[in-house]
Amino acid sequence: MLASWNDGAAKSALTGFVARIADPAGGQYVPPAERIAVFDNDGTLWSEYPLPVQALFVADRVRQLAARDASMRDRQPFKAILEHDHEALHALGKQGLAELLFATHTGMSADEFTGIARAWFASAKHPKLGAIPRQVVFKPQIELLGYLREHGFKNYIVSGGGVDFIRAMAEEHYGIPPEQVIGSSAKLRVESAAGGPVLMKAAEAGSFNDREAKVQNIALHIGRRPVLAFGNSDGDLAMLRYVRAGPGARLALLLHHDDADREAAYDRGFKVSPLAEALDQAAAYGIVVVRMKRDWNTVFF
Amino acid sequence: MLASWNDGAAKSALTGFVARIADPAGGQYVPPAERIAVFDNDGTLWSEYPLPVQALFVADRVRQLAARDASMRDRQPFKAILEHDHEALHALGKQGLAELLFATHTGMSADEFTGIARAWFASAKHPKLGAIPRQVVFKPQIELLGYLREHGFKNYIVSGGGVDFIRAMAEEHYGIPPEQVIGSSAKLRVESAAGGPVLMKAAEAGSFNDREAKVQNIALHIGRRPVLAFGNSDGDLAMLRYVRAGPGARLALLLHHDDADREAAYDRGFKVSPLAEALDQAAAYGIVVVRMKRDWNTVFF
Repeated sequence: MLASWNDGAAKSALTGFVARIADPAGGQYVPPAERIAVFDNDGTLWSEYPLPVQALFVADRVRQLAARDASMRDRQPFKAILEHDHEALHALGKQGLAELLFATHTGMSADEFTGIARAWFASAKHPKLGAIPRQVVFKPQIELLGYLREHGFKNYIVSGGGVDFIRAMAEEHYGIPPEQVIGSSAKLRVESAAGGPVLMKAAEAGSFNDREAKVQNIALHIGRRPVLAFGNSDGDLAMLRYVRAGPGARLALLLHHDDADREAAYDRGFKVSPLAEALDQAAAYGIVVVRMKRDWNTVFF
Repeated sequence: MLASWNDGAAKSALTGFVARIADPAGGQYVPPAERIAVFDNDGTLWSEYPLPVQALFVADRVRQLAARDASMRDRQPFKAILEHDHEALHALGKQGLAELLFATHTGMSADEFTGIARAWFASAKHPKLGAIPRQVVFKPQIELLGYLREHGFKNYIVSGGGVDFIRAMAEEHYGIPPEQVIGSSAKLRVESAAGGPVLMKAAEAGSFNDREAKVQNIALHIGRRPVLAFGNSDGDLAMLRYVRAGPGARLALLLHHDDADREAAYDRGFKVSPLAEALDQAAAYGIVVVRMKRDWNTVFF
């Protein structure tokens, strides 16, 4: 049980919390139906360094699409991806990112996208870590998800990543079914077909599930305040504080990536997912900091 | 088991379907994780005649608010509610309805609204049927929810009604937890407070969960196609057809209110929730029609 977690303050906070809320005789008992745990995904359940896994998917999809449509090689933002031109990509900003996401994630049915994502997960490779997702997910977190499940918790992912992308791997690799994944999304359009309605992924932004939106989407999808939250960046801070602010026993955890040897060392300077306020104010906000170097004896499978 | 259901085609369709998808040796086996059932609420799980339950809540709330703010008595749309002036109310149209919903459902925290709704459910009375919700829910449907649960199903509500309103009663009366309720919603605003973020219900429309939107929200919230759907109006037709169009065993059911003695007899002429295309095309669309008069030996508790 939690074999990859070193004994110490972080592990004790976890096991002590679970023991307290599961003890019907204690004053902090939480009935199983209310044992909801929410996890950020990128940087919390799997590595996001040097780039989020979904960015690798986008790049592979652009290469696939460009192989069929050569004109993409001369058009931004695709050109920048194909030529690994990070400067040009950065200059294209949010508009360029949106175009990349729409071109690779929309204009097909939801079922078709799931098939594409599953096929990618079956063979994708991370530049440093190996097979995606098997060698990119954090072993201590997979143990934690199982530990919570065994104690009656329902685990949710609440991620800034694309909801359909995560759903394509979460059940098999995290034991988290699609209905327990909340993420960013494009709008869906319902089209009539001979056999009945078909859901098409439209090139129109839906929800960008970051910061305050994580709290709004937890309320919309789950409808009650979770008792445990785990994140790793300032994008998770609203969710961590929202969970922590509820009555009774609550636990909020923050993973600090301080292990350059085994994974990566980054926080406030990391543009993809900066960690500053949450780290500086953790004690004041009652958030438990998990230090990869100190608290995990194993990082990957 | 299903004691309030008469033997016949509708009950056989239900029990036969469940037997087929639960038989690992049969060709139509569905693993428990994929046994998702979706139910409309108004007119499907509880009576919506002559008015949806939420309309009774709105009227009671307007009376409460007007008792504290006398100026509401002279202002539309509140005046029409207080004076039971259905003609004036109808003339105020969608805009009037939106104002009523915002005045009674927003401008407070999500937690406060849940408290108000729960207090209402603890003492509310339906003009004909008695205590809400106990004497307004359909007994055969409560039996069906339990029957499905015992066979490994996860039951969802997918309603045009307000999600927070339904969540305030669904766990106790339907055995359906908040996270398995999808409904219409106002937008939520996150406000900073001393103890952490607070969710405020804003006077701004979010999703109106009817017709095609039911299919979109099923995809957004559940992320996989349910295998069973139950509705009672044309507003449920897209959802029924979407579920029916999936591969393998699927069951779509439509309740026809044809029992004026025990509840009500209505369909295409009922403005609140018309039933025309779904009834006319049920056979063509492969939808099983449940007739209250013929298929239920008991309607209420």
